Amino acid sequence: MRISQLAERSTVPIATIKYYLREGLLHEGELTSATQARYDESHVQRLRLVRALIASGGLSVARARAVIEQLDGPHEHVGEVLGIAQGSVTPLPNANVDVSRATDLIKKWGWRIDPGDTASVTALAVALDGLDAAGFDLPDGALDHYVAHMADIAETEVAGIPTESVDAAVRYVVLGTVLVEPLLLALRRLAQQDASARRFLLD
Amino acid sequence: MRISQLAERSTVPIATIKYYLREGLLHEGELTSATQARYDESHVQRLRLVRALIASGGLSVARARAVIEQLDGPHEHVGEVLGIAQGSVTPLPNANVDVSRATDLIKKWGWRIDPGDTASVTALAVALDGLDAAGFDLPDGALDHYVAHMADIAETEVAGIPTESVDAAVRYVVLGTVLVEPLLLALRRLAQQDASARRFLLD
Repeated sequence: MRISQLAERSTVPIATIKYYLREGLLHEGELTSATQARYDESHVQRLRLVRALIASGGLSVARARAVIEQLDGPHEHVGEVLGIAQGSVTPLPNANVDVSRATDLIKKWGWRIDPGDTASVTALAVALDGLDAAGFDLPDGALDHYVAHMADIAETEVAGIPTESVDAAVRYVVLGTVLVEPLLLALRRLAQQDASARRFLLD
Repeated sequence: MRISQLAERSTVPIATIKYYLREGLLHEGELTSATQARYDESHVQRLRLVRALIASGGLSVARARAVIEQLDGPHEHVGEVLGIAQGSVTPLPNANVDVSRATDLIKKWGWRIDPGDTASVTALAVALDGLDAAGFDLPDGALDHYVAHMADIAETEVAGIPTESVDAAVRYVVLGTVLVEPLLLALRRLAQQDASARRFLLD
């Protein structure tokens, strides 16, 4: 199909498609003349994925490209996939953050963490520092409660990682990391509204 | 204290403090001359809160100001606090999103949602659309599993809302919404690493 048809099929404007081509988010089409290229179903699928990463996952173009490279790249071990996937979507850690409390908590919970992944440990440290700095004390037991819920969610998610091919595993892990985060946050807010309505409204 | 001491106490650079003053994120100090002002402990606390919202909560300056205005503003009903708080930190809904599937699911779960809050419903719709667009099928039962966990988390959080004063409730809800989100996401990623290490590494 021509680029105009690709735009129609994917509902992505032509100018945006050209931008994604320049930025390496979309593979080139097959040249049919010096100025025209032919696109196929793989381009439609890829455009939908890119839109999902940017619009729903909230990724920048650079971060979306890192994710796409993960999905396209060669992979060897399912066990290594998670660290690579999380690394590709997590900002580089800020070296000024003290991670000792986060590290102690992780040890206390008995979690085995990829030693190469400092980004997620830093993210935990930043989150805890943010609560402190704002003077927001979590109620007693709240952190353990969050930990127990997230551990159960993660256990189920990891048990669902497909093992028939490394590519399928990478796809599941990368997209599960990026695209399930906004789902969980939306569900929490809606569930809070429901709980609040039941607690505070008397009709 | 003078602005230089405020910078030292809060570890926020003077230029940033002046920027926050101009942007209304920080209240003015007491003028001691035409060019100098005196700051007190309330400025130190406020600066820490602003830094937490921006650095840990990931809010823009405009969004952080909306949150601050919520915290400072007059409040009447604890029951209304949650919708206002979530509204102040959630981007305006994109009118192009079809929310019918999200609305049907919320009805199926029996959740009572603030009818004025279309932002959270839209966020759910965008998250579900993103999974579809990326061709990522949640495993059977996964959505119900997420819903059950988030409902339990929200139930506990709402039960912890302080009721002795509306101001305390607002503070708890606003900061709990903004600052607990990064905590939950960091915990999920770390828990995934632990689950992955137990599943795929054999040492």
